[in-house]
Parts: sequence; structure tokens; C-alpha cells
Amino acid sequence: MTQPKILVTNDDGIYASGIKALWKAMSEIGEVTVVAPNREQSAVGHAITVSDPLRVQEVKRSNGFFGYAVNGTPADCVKIAIQALLEEKPDVVISGINHGSNTGNNIIYSGTVSAATEGTMLDIPSIAISLNSFENRDFSGAQSVAKAVVSNVVKNGLWKKTLLNVNVPAIPENEFKGFKITQQGNAVFKDNFEKREDPRGNTYYWMTGKMMNPDLEIDNDQKAISEGYVSITPIHYRLTNHEFIDELNGWDFS
Amino acid sequence: MTQPKILVTNDDGIYASGIKALWKAMSEIGEVTVVAPNREQSAVGHAITVSDPLRVQEVKRSNGFFGYAVNGTPADCVKIAIQALLEEKPDVVISGINHGSNTGNNIIYSGTVSAATEGTMLDIPSIAISLNSFENRDFSGAQSVAKAVVSNVVKNGLWKKTLLNVNVPAIPENEFKGFKITQQGNAVFKDNFEKREDPRGNTYYWMTGKMMNPDLEIDNDQKAISEGYVSITPIHYRLTNHEFIDELNGWDFS
Repeated sequence: MTQPKILVTNDDGIYASGIKALWKAMSEIGEVTVVAPNREQSAVGHAITVSDPLRVQEVKRSNGFFGYAVNGTPADCVKIAIQALLEEKPDVVISGINHGSNTGNNIIYSGTVSAATEGTMLDIPSIAISLNSFENRDFSGAQSVAKAVVSNVVKNGLWKKTLLNVNVPAIPENEFKGFKITQQGNAVFKDNFEKREDPRGNTYYWMTGKMMNPDLEIDNDQKAISEGYVSITPIHYRLTNHEFIDELNGWDFS
Repeated sequence: MTQPKILVTNDDGIYASGIKALWKAMSEIGEVTVVAPNREQSAVGHAITVSDPLRVQEVKRSNGFFGYAVNGTPADCVKIAIQALLEEKPDVVISGINHGSNTGNNIIYSGTVSAATEGTMLDIPSIAISLNSFENRDFSGAQSVAKAVVSNVVKNGLWKKTLLNVNVPAIPENEFKGFKITQQGNAVFKDNFEKREDPRGNTYYWMTGKMMNPDLEIDNDQKAISEGYVSITPIHYRLTNHEFIDELNGWDFS
């Protein structure tokens, strides 16, 4: 079989270590194009750029890394790659390797996941992959995981409107306990705003937060990685709460 | 009963017509605080500001409008309002009145919906409301709808993790066909990138798009408003595709 065409993107930006590690791993199994934000775009959620023009620049890094940098969000990168830059549609979109996990309720804020969602909306099987560490540490375990997951996706396909959210524990690969198919948990950052005064006497606020995982009894993404498993969660974006429709039909809006 | 405490926000910014119309309508039924972005934040999705400090400024407009402007996203506004600015938690969060509908797959990009999602994540019953017109036309129908929906939410409550996404047709109120409880449809912008050259000979791209609604056979949000109904969709953010888990458990990642 010919090599799969793989579109690589991320939200930490084209100069991050994680995307270079992902580019390298994907180059071993496919024909790779990198299209990524020209600067960090973490916590941008599913933002797109509608009021400003987008520009694309070629970027070279050491060891043969080549990619296109876009002055936009992760979702912009996937859109412009598939709809303007690439001559053929890719077989797979993979976003990462993110510095820091994307689990629980926090995936709503995730640029990494939004890039994979965008790929899915454009009918390309898509994957988000994150390493549970904010430091630039060893990506080799996550690289192996990326290859295993992409190979499976190429072989088995994904359901329409469904993407895979992969989280990798930040431990040596030979200590991984295995792969676990999980649910999105309820882990969430408990926010706090720290109020300060600037040198001119004006108030400003820093958002700070602490990760909490309230549901430890079910097989969820955050629990899996904290126990040393690679977590794979199939996610979609069908947001209707069908179970609540009957009750709403009983309301009186007149 | 005491008046409900209502937090009003939006994504078009604190100077938009829609938020002023919403402030006015809410003031008739509750005690209102406005906390909104200091400039337009459309299509920001569920972005939050983690790398920059947030600042808050008081804003006065005609007819007694008073609010707090934040240099952040709609989700930031809800977070900072509830966690730093308000002395008591609000009873309801309502975001809008957005200029333009938020239906189908497009709600993923919506700052209006993300503000209501954030309210829901903070355990406050929350509503997003949008008018199906990009022009600054008559908001009176949407104002009546906002009052009817908020009154119902205050009376009946909402399920945890469920918000209401309300879309109002841009026709006179007396021509509304009624309220319809709907599903999120598959309406989507079919994007296109228009390639241009700037005066210096550099290439740039504008994202353009056209709304498509492929599923006209079910009761969905976009279909309802195009037929003249007010659409109310209960949405959540539990993203696991449980049906795909069995199949994934059969994959071989070794």
C-alpha cells in the first residue's frame, strides 16, 4: 500500500518540541505535511479567524523539518491546509504532541483537540495527542503511541464525526501499563483569579487554576494517564441533550 | 419572590446593539450585571486567556446601561464575573443577543454559546440567544423570547451540565410560528479561501463561507428558524462517543 498522507498540526506553534517529535514519528510511516500556528495558541478552544487575513510562511528547522506557519488558530491551520494549501486531501490529521494533557472538561478549551475536530468536520479521520507534562521532556513514548494509533486509524478507519483524543502518561515507554479506551471524565481546572495592582495603581487579574478530577470510579481519561495507561477517548461534537427534550416540551413559553 | 440575579454577556462586545437590547429586557425581570468583552470576539470558540492579565473597566452607555468590559473572551468574562467581580453567584447567565444565528455545527465556533457553556460548567443555569440576522435590526422579538426563556429557567431549573441554545428568526414577533424544541442540526459553513496579493506582492487568504443545511428532514435548529419558529436546543458537553468504544477495544495497538 502507498504511504498515508498525514497532515500534522498543533496548538503550541510550529516551533514547539512536540510538533517536531510528531513530524519525525509520522515521517517514518507516511508522507507528512506540517501546517501549524506561527506562535503558541493554547487554550484558544475552537476559535477561527474571520476578521483578519491569513498568511502562510515556510519554516525550516534542524534535521530536515519543514512546515507552513499560519498566523491563525489550530482550526484555521487545518481549514487552510485542506482547502487551500494541499493538492490532495490527507488521509489522516494529527494534532500535537501537546505539552500537557487534554482531559475531562478541559478539552473544551483545547486548541489541540479543536484542530482534530476541524479535520473531522472536513471528513478526514483525525487524532489529537497530548503528553501529560508541561515540560519539554522525552517524547519517545508519545511518538510510538502516535505511530500505533495512526496505523490503526489508516487500517480500520474512524466513524464519521468521531475523532480520537489520545493522552500519554509522562513516564518511560517501558513503564506504560498499556492502552485504555476511556470516557471523557469530569476533570477540570478550578480557577482562581489573583488580583494585583500594576505600577500605575491599576488593577489587573491573573487566571490561575488547579486540576481536579472528581470522578475516580469510572474509566476516564485523566484517571487512566495518572495510573500509567495511554488513554484513547472517542469523542464527537453532537451536543444535543436528547434526554432533556421531553421535559422542555412541557415548558410554557407563552 | 425576589428578583433573579442575571449575568449578561455576549461575544459581539459590550458596545453591540444586541447586548444593550438584552440588558434592557433582563432589567424588566431581574437584577442585572453586564460583564462582556471590550471588543468583538466572534468565532473565538471556547477560548480563554491564560498568558495575559485581564483588566476590567466600567462602561456607561445611553439609557442607563452600565457594565464591565473585560479585555478577554466571552468565557473569560463569565469566569471573572462569577469568580472575582460578583459578590453573589448569579441565578442565570445569558449570553447574547448575538448578531447572527448559532446553529448546527457552527455552534462549535460560537463565543456566544461558549459563554453559556462556561456558566454551565460553573453550575449556573445558562442560556445563549441569537438573532438570525447580521444586521442591527429590531431586537424586540428576541427580547420577548429572552424574558420567556429566563422566566422558565428560573421557575423550572435546568439539568446539570445542560444549557439552552436559543435562536430567534429575524421576523416581526407577531409572525413567529411559536417555540420549537430542536436538535442541533448539521448546518455548517462551507469554507472557501480567497487567495489575494497585497500591494507588496505577498500572498494572503480570506476565509469566506456559505451556510449549508444538509438535514432538512429532522426538527433541527436551523430548519426551525428558517421556518419562522423560535428554536430552543438543549445542549451539553459530554463528548464521549460511547457507541464507538466497543470497536476501539478490538484494535491492536501493540
